[in-house]
Amino acid sequence: MEKFFNPKSVVIVGASNSSFNLGSTICNMLKDYLHYTGPVYTVNSKAETVNGCPGFSSVLDLPQTPDMAIIIVAARHVPGIIKDCAKKGIKRIVIESAGFAEDGQNGAAMQREIDEVARENGMRIMGPNCLGTLSTRDKFCSFYGVNPSLVEMNQIFETPGNISYIIQSGGVVVLVMESLYYDLVGINKVVSIGNKSDVDEADLIDYFQKDETEVIGIYLENVADGRKLMEAAQKSRKPILIYKVGRTPEGAMAAMSHTAGMASNDLIFESACKQAGIIRLNSINELHSLPKMFTEMPILKGNRVAMFTNSGAFGSIAADLLVDAGLQMVRLSGQTQDKLKKAGQVFNVKNPVDIGPAPPQTYLDIFEILLGADEVDGLLPLLSVWQTFVIDTLQELLKMCKHYDKPAAIYTPNAVAKSIAIRAKHRIPIFETPEQSVRALSVSHMFCESLRKRGFIGDHEKFENTDNRRIMKGTMEAAL
Amino acid sequence: MEKFFNPKSVVIVGASNSSFNLGSTICNMLKDYLHYTGPVYTVNSKAETVNGCPGFSSVLDLPQTPDMAIIIVAARHVPGIIKDCAKKGIKRIVIESAGFAEDGQNGAAMQREIDEVARENGMRIMGPNCLGTLSTRDKFCSFYGVNPSLVEMNQIFETPGNISYIIQSGGVVVLVMESLYYDLVGINKVVSIGNKSDVDEADLIDYFQKDETEVIGIYLENVADGRKLMEAAQKSRKPILIYKVGRTPEGAMAAMSHTAGMASNDLIFESACKQAGIIRLNSINELHSLPKMFTEMPILKGNRVAMFTNSGAFGSIAADLLVDAGLQMVRLSGQTQDKLKKAGQVFNVKNPVDIGPAPPQTYLDIFEILLGADEVDGLLPLLSVWQTFVIDTLQELLKMCKHYDKPAAIYTPNAVAKSIAIRAKHRIPIFETPEQSVRALSVSHMFCESLRKRGFIGDHEKFENTDNRRIMKGTMEAAL
Repeated sequence: MEKFFNPKSVVIVGASNSSFNLGSTICNMLKDYLHYTGPVYTVNSKAETVNGCPGFSSVLDLPQTPDMAIIIVAARHVPGIIKDCAKKGIKRIVIESAGFAEDGQNGAAMQREIDEVARENGMRIMGPNCLGTLSTRDKFCSFYGVNPSLVEMNQIFETPGNISYIIQSGGVVVLVMESLYYDLVGINKVVSIGNKSDVDEADLIDYFQKDETEVIGIYLENVADGRKLMEAAQKSRKPILIYKVGRTPEGAMAAMSHTAGMASNDLIFESACKQAGIIRLNSINELHSLPKMFTEMPILKGNRVAMFTNSGAFGSIAADLLVDAGLQMVRLSGQTQDKLKKAGQVFNVKNPVDIGPAPPQTYLDIFEILLGADEVDGLLPLLSVWQTFVIDTLQELLKMCKHYDKPAAIYTPNAVAKSIAIRAKHRIPIFETPEQSVRALSVSHMFCESLRKRGFIGDHEKFENTDNRRIMKGTMEAAL
Repeated sequence: MEKFFNPKSVVIVGASNSSFNLGSTICNMLKDYLHYTGPVYTVNSKAETVNGCPGFSSVLDLPQTPDMAIIIVAARHVPGIIKDCAKKGIKRIVIESAGFAEDGQNGAAMQREIDEVARENGMRIMGPNCLGTLSTRDKFCSFYGVNPSLVEMNQIFETPGNISYIIQSGGVVVLVMESLYYDLVGINKVVSIGNKSDVDEADLIDYFQKDETEVIGIYLENVADGRKLMEAAQKSRKPILIYKVGRTPEGAMAAMSHTAGMASNDLIFESACKQAGIIRLNSINELHSLPKMFTEMPILKGNRVAMFTNSGAFGSIAADLLVDAGLQMVRLSGQTQDKLKKAGQVFNVKNPVDIGPAPPQTYLDIFEILLGADEVDGLLPLLSVWQTFVIDTLQELLKMCKHYDKPAAIYTPNAVAKSIAIRAKHRIPIFETPEQSVRALSVSHMFCESLRKRGFIGDHEKFENTDNRRIMKGTMEAAL
């Protein structure tokens, strides 16, 4: 599987110099932008060289057997090309062409034909109807049609991170990558699996256990093999976040015309997710907004949350949301309340802690008091950035969260555009709505509970049993 | 009530030249920023002039009886000042000071004392614990602590609009105003009513029937008089959107410490809203994100929605959401499907209509075909801005919606920051998530149904019976 993300040589079947040719955009991405150093061959009817990538009229003519073939030609030509690839001994194929199972009976028959050839020859196939793979650390990308001069793409490769995505749609890939550009978390790998006739989400969950991935985000239009997916998830020590469409018959029908998904029983899927520790997302935006809670913060080990606001209304708003999410508004102890009284400028020393106009030190004192309190498992700061010093105190908060090994899901009750700008500039994991913040605490706690249930961590012990580096780090720092 | 928004003379009791004095920020706003031309008096212990506003040691010494008094002093002084105002014959009072019913028994007793004086003397009171009023057209604002140099404030006064807000919290006022700055709809009036010992949301709903208001947005922490609110709502020809906290006991407790709200039965409130045609919001962000659906688009007169996407996944995502919202994925007629086939580049001519890379004319053709189809009541365009021409076609779509008198709730599957920037620059009512778009269609339809139910429009007739100018306009244009 590794070589799907880091092939030492590739052939792009269908890349040519015709105008609007999609295969050539992959050549351009690899050569001009990623400075890919291995050989890139092309196959096209004129055997023409494309952007310095030598051209041949058939895969059979290539001077070597490349690690991977990317196929982007009209669907009807694909079965023949696959047979050529088999003869040539190519083991990894990305079929980007559309027009297979999602396009009716004819397409489905072609897809079956391809599968058979692949099985007989020990080849692995990604797609059809997909974009293939992207790896930021390997500086490899098989996506067609992406403009490599986009600043978004630029930053994604320059600042590799620890989220990996498995996405059954090109459009969602674009949304997620563009959104992360305005966020603060980086990407490790992205796979667009399309109709997933062979390589599916379960294979990739297994693979992502062994690399730099810390969080796995998945967008699904259908489940190919439910049992296989659940078994892979059950074994995962890394959080798996899935947004799945097709909950309703209408949604399932729409998905079918898109990536050939079959309607499946949503209730069964829902309960299987709970069983296997999969976190099911409520919106497509959660796919890019929630992972930062795992990469930037310790996990929430209990359900008792303290709120801290400088704008009273948001305490009331978040209290409703917290209860809806099954988390607990912690009753602060007398001792904690006494400490808060001494901090000064506090309107309300009970949860939600509510302050008036106060200097930076008051903010820092309150963070410290709340995170240090035994009865508090995590913090929900709802702090309007009415002065720029609030940003500085939030940066201190990040350090305190690591020290106390307790998370904070920060919401700044400002215009979303303003919050996004602060987040990107100051590298603070700010959520865009109070709903998102509460949800972040909730999924963090769900993940912790699922680690316990699946025996990765003991009921009351700390997190020494897990190899999740982030959790270890938090625990170790807390122990100092 | 009018004079609360447009007083010809005011006194600010508590404005002084001491550092951190809050009252003086109101003088500064009126004089330096809004260029208020009427007399502004101040009352403070030294009888000192504040930013050119003549100072007196008591309200009784003022050379005239101002239209309105704004009081911002420590709570314990307020009852005495109210008595002075009564003697002086001042009829409108905004009490911005906190420390009343929200602050325990003592405060509650003072609030009752004030109420009694007001009732006996025919005075109307706004607050206590509030910011008072803002009117963009009258260029008046009684809010303290607002920095008038903020660009956000600037634009709000420069581009008056047709949304009016009734908000029981200063923090939410700031969030809403800041958010609208990054949106495209303008404000008419904003009232922060705090503990609302006298003037309440029902009074203001009545008042907003007669001015430029087209949509009424309300944030409530408690309902003072349920029957009065519901009667006012029942008579409203303008949509009323309410976000209310305190759904849970925890939320109600938090609200109590903020604006002295009493826990009320949420189920009763919910069913009363349905009865009275009030649209209850699901999140605080809906307070600023949804009004544009009413000010920028015709209302949704049936529940049959057609979707149009250039990124297949979003058709599947939105189909689920549409069904959840009780709207209907319209079955496009054979005739409509034939027309779509002729438009070219269409992957799927059934709903959701899904296209590949296509030129601008294809987008325009599809808009026209779908809006022109008898079976379609409204449109859900899910169009990624992969080329800038998509923006141009969306601007054409706005005109077509008016022509056909059918709404479109536009979502662009791009990073939120990008969508917000496009919306602000090109004045296109873009929603930030697919959930928001579907919700916009849903509330538009709920409003239409409630107009029918309350007899403002006939069951099958057009909208001639209502004085809502926007609806009339849409109808008239459609008739041409």
